[in-house]
Amino acid sequence: AGDGEDFARTMDRKLLGLHKKEKLTHFKVYWHDILSGPNPTSIMIQPPVTNSSYFGAISMIDNALTAKVPMNSTVLGQAQGFYAGAAQKELGFLMAMNFAFKTGKYNGSTITILGRNTALSEVREMPIVGGSGLFRFARGYVEARTKWINLKNGDATVEYSCYVLHY
Amino acid sequence: AGDGEDFARTMDRKLLGLHKKEKLTHFKVYWHDILSGPNPTSIMIQPPVTNSSYFGAISMIDNALTAKVPMNSTVLGQAQGFYAGAAQKELGFLMAMNFAFKTGKYNGSTITILGRNTALSEVREMPIVGGSGLFRFARGYVEARTKWINLKNGDATVEYSCYVLHY
Repeated sequence: AGDGEDFARTMDRKLLGLHKKEKLTHFKVYWHDILSGPNPTSIMIQPPVTNSSYFGAISMIDNALTAKVPMNSTVLGQAQGFYAGAAQKELGFLMAMNFAFKTGKYNGSTITILGRNTALSEVREMPIVGGSGLFRFARGYVEARTKWINLKNGDATVEYSCYVLHY
Repeated sequence: AGDGEDFARTMDRKLLGLHKKEKLTHFKVYWHDILSGPNPTSIMIQPPVTNSSYFGAISMIDNALTAKVPMNSTVLGQAQGFYAGAAQKELGFLMAMNFAFKTGKYNGSTITILGRNTALSEVREMPIVGGSGLFRFARGYVEARTKWINLKNGDATVEYSCYVLHY
């Protein structure tokens, strides 16, 4: 057949360890959303539609993920992506970000989060829609809880408690 | 119950073939990111925050996917979506794109990629977070390898080796 016809092949699942039972991994990381100071890691690249809400705004982030609440605790990786104001009647963001891990056996592995974050709620749950490296074929969810927030400049630290099902 | 109460119904999984074992499909396609010339397929729609890195930039793409490295080899489909500069200290993109296939039995089917692409690394792994048509309920991952890049104008051809688990 022409090369456009059957460019795909069926593969034995075992070659990718897909015959094994999926594992459930849990961890907590602390996500630091720093808007203020000389080196912000969260920068608005699109303003809101009106100044009465965040709707329409987009911020790009390269936020540190640490092992404990303090910003100067061990950095485990970075949260890279963006959040967009996607609610008109409350504070609600579409989060689209990768958690890229940089230490220990998870160095180089990622999980991808795409979900809704009503940031003022006490607990916000968002899906983990995929992963790479040790988190290949990942599915799962995170629970986000704000640990502290500076209402003047918007800086905040949020705990992400992550439950990942993967091979 | 009120009509807003139970708008959802349980269905028999067999009706969608979900009783069958998932298949693992593998294929390679060549993704052409053309920024230069009269008909670019990758266009920056949001500039970076500073000119020292891509952080904050967003490019929309409708890139050809071909069967072989040369741009004039058989077109299998299009990669439609965007990539955003989401790293401050290295070159790292959030990739959000659909591979829409246009030939053979996969015509009309798609896979969705959402992940982190450190474009200068030799191999970059990103998750396949979903699919449609023959790739319904898809999970998987891609390995991206740059085949050539024009450092003057940014044009590049990248091999996407795709592993898709689907029904």
